[in-house]
Amino acid sequence: MITEKDISFLQQAVDLAIDGLKHGKGGPFGCIIVKNEKIIGKGSNSVISNTDPTAHAEIVAIRDACKHLGTYQLDGCVLYSSCEPCPMCLGAIYWARPERVCYAATRFTAADAGFDDEFIYKEIDLNQDKRKIPFEFYHEERFLAPFLLWKQQDEKKLY
Amino acid sequence: MITEKDISFLQQAVDLAIDGLKHGKGGPFGCIIVKNEKIIGKGSNSVISNTDPTAHAEIVAIRDACKHLGTYQLDGCVLYSSCEPCPMCLGAIYWARPERVCYAATRFTAADAGFDDEFIYKEIDLNQDKRKIPFEFYHEERFLAPFLLWKQQDEKKLY
Repeated sequence: MITEKDISFLQQAVDLAIDGLKHGKGGPFGCIIVKNEKIIGKGSNSVISNTDPTAHAEIVAIRDACKHLGTYQLDGCVLYSSCEPCPMCLGAIYWARPERVCYAATRFTAADAGFDDEFIYKEIDLNQDKRKIPFEFYHEERFLAPFLLWKQQDEKKLY
Repeated sequence: MITEKDISFLQQAVDLAIDGLKHGKGGPFGCIIVKNEKIIGKGSNSVISNTDPTAHAEIVAIRDACKHLGTYQLDGCVLYSSCEPCPMCLGAIYWARPERVCYAATRFTAADAGFDDEFIYKEIDLNQDKRKIPFEFYHEERFLAPFLLWKQQDEKKLY
């Protein structure tokens, strides 16, 4: 259920998208993260200004919020994005584990503006050799060494 | 086609995974990025040491390579990962656009070690209200403002 407060926070994410665009940071995307009705992280897409393809609004906001909280988990937080998260950002959200996500435009609107979000969603389900960027799996027993070492550790910090 | 050189680079990604684990950086994952047979970026999973849920090996390596090259695109590069990229890292790879990806263990091996990669792949295809983290779409006309501004720009830098 979207509330009046949610809508106000969505507007703030949209404002960040506009602000980032006006300052030449990157694409037209903004994100804020809220805990107990207080903004604890925010970001505009900064791919161009940071020369960093991972600097989407959600990633920037998640890193900002985690820095603020001193943790790698966003328990009890809500993430507001000006647009539906791409697969990279969806993955980042799942690793950060906020309570819920609200967004104000879809991947199809992003596609219409020239962005690859919807294209990448489609690529995920293809056989790896059919993808535009081929993914190749090669295995030898010795390549399991990191997992064996991990399993032997007494105190594992899962994330 | 996996070559002897690919296998050697995969071993180096695996070595980074072990090294990161031994230094308490995070999970058992490593990644290197190669251009013209030279390593131009590398990373170990650093979620714990950086308190950053986005600091997977591939993301760290992509950011490192882009810093090295001074660009947000990895044309002509090969990404070697000790394990199959999760959806976040797959997305990051598509935005960075290397030539190909090679990896040395699967998402199922990661799942067996307690990691969510395979779980997140499954969540993507669910209806948004069925996901463990609910995604909610709410739209008003005014929320399209960033895209309208984007379309009006003469010089768009796509990424």
